[in-house]
Amino acid sequence: MDAAALRGVVPYLPTPLGADGKVDSAALARLCEHLIASGVHGLTPLGSTGEFAYLDFAQREATVRATVEAAAGRVPVIAGVAATATADAVRQARRWAELGADGILAILEAYFPIPEAGVVEYFTAIADASDLPVTLYTNPNFQRSDLTLDAIDRLADHPNVRFLKDASTNTGRLLSVLQRSGDRIGVFAASSHITTAVMLIGGRGWLAGPSCLVPEQSVRLYELCRAGEWEAAMVLQRDLWAVNQVFARYNLAAAVKAGLRLQEFDMGDPVPPQRPLAAEAVADIRAALERAGALPA
Amino acid sequence: MDAAALRGVVPYLPTPLGADGKVDSAALARLCEHLIASGVHGLTPLGSTGEFAYLDFAQREATVRATVEAAAGRVPVIAGVAATATADAVRQARRWAELGADGILAILEAYFPIPEAGVVEYFTAIADASDLPVTLYTNPNFQRSDLTLDAIDRLADHPNVRFLKDASTNTGRLLSVLQRSGDRIGVFAASSHITTAVMLIGGRGWLAGPSCLVPEQSVRLYELCRAGEWEAAMVLQRDLWAVNQVFARYNLAAAVKAGLRLQEFDMGDPVPPQRPLAAEAVADIRAALERAGALPA
Amino acid sequence: MDAAALRGVVPYLPTPLGADGKVDSAALARLCEHLIASGVHGLTPLGSTGEFAYLDFAQREATVRATVEAAAGRVPVIAGVAATATADAVRQARRWAELGADGILAILEAYFPIPEAGVVEYFTAIADASDLPVTLYTNPNFQRSDLTLDAIDRLADHPNVRFLKDASTNTGRLLSVLQRSGDRIGVFAASSHITTAVMLIGGRGWLAGPSCLVPEQSVRLYELCRAGEWEAAMVLQRDLWAVNQVFARYNLAAAVKAGLRLQEFDMGDPVPPQRPLAAEAVADIRAALERAGALPA
Amino acid sequence: MDAAALRGVVPYLPTPLGADGKVDSAALARLCEHLIASGVHGLTPLGSTGEFAYLDFAQREATVRATVEAAAGRVPVIAGVAATATADAVRQARRWAELGADGILAILEAYFPIPEAGVVEYFTAIADASDLPVTLYTNPNFQRSDLTLDAIDRLADHPNVRFLKDASTNTGRLLSVLQRSGDRIGVFAASSHITTAVMLIGGRGWLAGPSCLVPEQSVRLYELCRAGEWEAAMVLQRDLWAVNQVFARYNLAAAVKAGLRLQEFDMGDPVPPQRPLAAEAVADIRAALERAGALPA
Repeated sequence: MDAAALRGVVPYLPTPLGADGKVDSAALARLCEHLIASGVHGLTPLGSTGEFAYLDFAQREATVRATVEAAAGRVPVIAGVAATATADAVRQARRWAELGADGILAILEAYFPIPEAGVVEYFTAIADASDLPVTLYTNPNFQRSDLTLDAIDRLADHPNVRFLKDASTNTGRLLSVLQRSGDRIGVFAASSHITTAVMLIGGRGWLAGPSCLVPEQSVRLYELCRAGEWEAAMVLQRDLWAVNQVFARYNLAAAVKAGLRLQEFDMGDPVPPQRPLAAEAVADIRAALERAGALPA
Repeated sequence: MDAAALRGVVPYLPTPLGADGKVDSAALARLCEHLIASGVHGLTPLGSTGEFAYLDFAQREATVRATVEAAAGRVPVIAGVAATATADAVRQARRWAELGADGILAILEAYFPIPEAGVVEYFTAIADASDLPVTLYTNPNFQRSDLTLDAIDRLADHPNVRFLKDASTNTGRLLSVLQRSGDRIGVFAASSHITTAVMLIGGRGWLAGPSCLVPEQSVRLYELCRAGEWEAAMVLQRDLWAVNQVFARYNLAAAVKAGLRLQEFDMGDPVPPQRPLAAEAVADIRAALERAGALPA
Repeated sequence: MDAAALRGVVPYLPTPLGADGKVDSAALARLCEHLIASGVHGLTPLGSTGEFAYLDFAQREATVRATVEAAAGRVPVIAGVAATATADAVRQARRWAELGADGILAILEAYFPIPEAGVVEYFTAIADASDLPVTLYTNPNFQRSDLTLDAIDRLADHPNVRFLKDASTNTGRLLSVLQRSGDRIGVFAASSHITTAVMLIGGRGWLAGPSCLVPEQSVRLYELCRAGEWEAAMVLQRDLWAVNQVFARYNLAAAVKAGLRLQEFDMGDPVPPQRPLAAEAVADIRAALERAGALPA
Repeated sequence: MDAAALRGVVPYLPTPLGADGKVDSAALARLCEHLIASGVHGLTPLGSTGEFAYLDFAQREATVRATVEAAAGRVPVIAGVAATATADAVRQARRWAELGADGILAILEAYFPIPEAGVVEYFTAIADASDLPVTLYTNPNFQRSDLTLDAIDRLADHPNVRFLKDASTNTGRLLSVLQRSGDRIGVFAASSHITTAVMLIGGRGWLAGPSCLVPEQSVRLYELCRAGEWEAAMVLQRDLWAVNQVFARYNLAAAVKAGLRLQEFDMGDPVPPQRPLAAEAVADIRAALERAGALPA
């Protein structure tokens, strides 16, 4: 799998856990099968949607293993590495590479503020830890750090740092990154951006939790964008934006798991102290999915 | 002038003040003449760029009067109304209407937090104060309040509330507004958004300070968007985004005034305690304008 | 009046306005008379509680004039100067001095961020504008600027800059100011601090809106602190803290005006779009005042 | 050890790690011995200063074991439990109890926002996990959650929830907690508060990293407060506040480790990507310690 050529729709996978805290590999495999059949271009375990922040090393390891097995080489698996300590991140990156992941999604968790030199050192250590292509992931809503344009530009000089996935709402910032460092780093959107707009400015696709719920529609949107059919894309984009908005309103992992349950994929509940959604919230999600044609009427 | 049909490029005008604090009407007229000759679709005195927050009532009045006279009915004048107190805002709106303004740009300044019902009451009072079409203006960076989607939707029911101009960086929020209230309210971008992206999702144009410096290029970009030439638009957009970025780095009024001085429009210095830009910042602005073809080489 | 020797309890006065927007001098005089009879050590028109941010120049002028007349030289009047533009602040300071104010409370309103050199220039211009002693006022909750320890230290070198009144909740910051600049600048608390704690670390008293409602109790607390009766002070402090807490829960001007109405001082309603308090909030205020012995049972 | 009777000075211990990531039990024991000899009233491994956020389960376990052994029953050991997931927190609490800890310091790490019911559930699960007394720890600067007064009051009803340690700068908030829930929960300060002020309002002492550097002075300050010698306490407090301020300026773990190295306790460097302090910062720390009499001149 050449994950360095990654483009398209790459769903963030939720992590299904049993009551004993064990990863339910069968449930994960069934979802992966469905997504691949729907045409997605990659799979990302251990993003925000995958509740990486709530899982221990063994749970994360089981998640990557199950996803790699389910993908079976048909689409690349981009596995999340997230830590506060550099050594922990390096350990994850090496292990995910051994398990057969095709790429790394790199996240810095922070407690104390880390100066920029330390941030660059952290991501560089991940990029050095294996030969896999690395996607930098910034999410200023939930992570306590952000990458400056200067830091991104310096990191883009590393041969393994290939992509950036940004989960802010600031679309202009992505254009700034592309103008400054776009010769060395490709850009993916999150569900917080209008993905059609990110494609228009030169993006490669999107890594996003809600795409699990609307994989076919997402792939169709991507193809319209690739074909330069911008106005047709916007028609479809409006339906999908309504889906993104409903997910933005609730706990993301709880919402994706609730939506998949409506589609008869049982991924369990979010890890406590997160809570399952209330009935009213589930009704909102049902309505958005129905409008997008992602639930039988 | 039918300001209710407003579309296109509407520059935010800086306010030129003499050492005595008097508005320099001649300098303002010369700039307006240049902008109209460059094809802009309207003029906006008393936006953020116009330093409304630093001007007293008499200075604001002189600014509106001078702009209306300079426009001479060739393009609509959308005059800024900004206050903390409802009565002050109403007084401004009535006076700007008497002076011949074609539309109102409505801004809520806040000190204490105002509950949503009070916010809606404030904007409704402005909309009731004259027959002019009203553009709601939200700028979460500098104003201490923001309008929720609910508040915008309620205000959109007022027959005089016609437009929203948003100066956040959250482009997705504009799509959310359009999906919720787009049958009743049109959306304009600020320089914080990629204007091509806002046009793609259904925007009507942009109200922005940097457009004073690149009026011809801005009009060309608008026309490419209107023609659905999205990829050609993006080529031009990249140059203009570099201009926006340099303005975002500095005090906006100081930067616009410094850039216009390079183009031989003397608009004076920003109102103290704001300060003129340092030489290094002026050099940055010069470089961005040269790249955009907005300065003789 | 030697306002440079200011110590003690200095209530922030609300501003009573009639339906026509005129300042009700008689109502203001009646409140001042009551406060002076209760032993307060000064009066402060045009603080946050006085809704300076909602008043025009003429309303502010009438407020200062009425307070100076009511005080009649018995206690110093420290009048608020607040502006975004330096020239406006200087004009206010000069006029309040002409009207007989004994000191200036200096506030920087901000729209665009102002670099520290500009902030220092602004407060220096106010200090230069008259011979009156100046109290710097920082309120990070409502103002868009804060004074760094460096800026305070530089300003403390000006012979007219004599005091700082801080409305943050960070009591340690006041100790830092005293350690750095306490030989040149005295410190007053706001209602956001435990005033007994601020007295313990070396404060001179407090400037606060809720003191209008509990003037006798506040003076008693001040005297206990001055006498070093710290544990007795804390007994009284607990009742007064309950009062401060209830005011912190609501719009400050609305709450002070509602509380005074319960004590039969009619100061009108807050300036729209601020709103009078709901009945439930008024009941909360009534309960706190009763516990503090500030309402007939 | 009756940790439910905890009062006084309880230093937060740094965690010494070798190059292999192993906890250096001997170095930790030597520091504990020194602190106990200096009269401290308890020891807290795995607070913010202890870099809990950068340590894995095995490192945390080794830290608790080493501290319990070093204390040898002479002072209570209050061990930090910190997690995003409830199950992980419960596992830590049970294990620390087995290892002989005398109390639990309970911290909620958050990624997604957790509604109040979930927050209460998390801390309740920790309190249920053992018989040890629990101290709730809130640090709004570094943790992504805070406890409301309502949540604290509900948690105070649990028989094992005995204390709150607050690392905000808002001293008034502690008085609010004491007035609302002080019959059921005792309050400790952090180094962000003026500890004398917190003692005055009814606090029991402080849990703080800088106390490792000035243990004798801290114990003397505590005793002055207990004796009601408030003005003598403030004289000493001023020196110690200068120490706290210098620690607030830098990465806390790096600063405590650098200061201890000056006192010839080698605790190693902070966990990467945190960085050791620059020479200039070390000089600042040296100066503050010298002023406080905590370094040989």
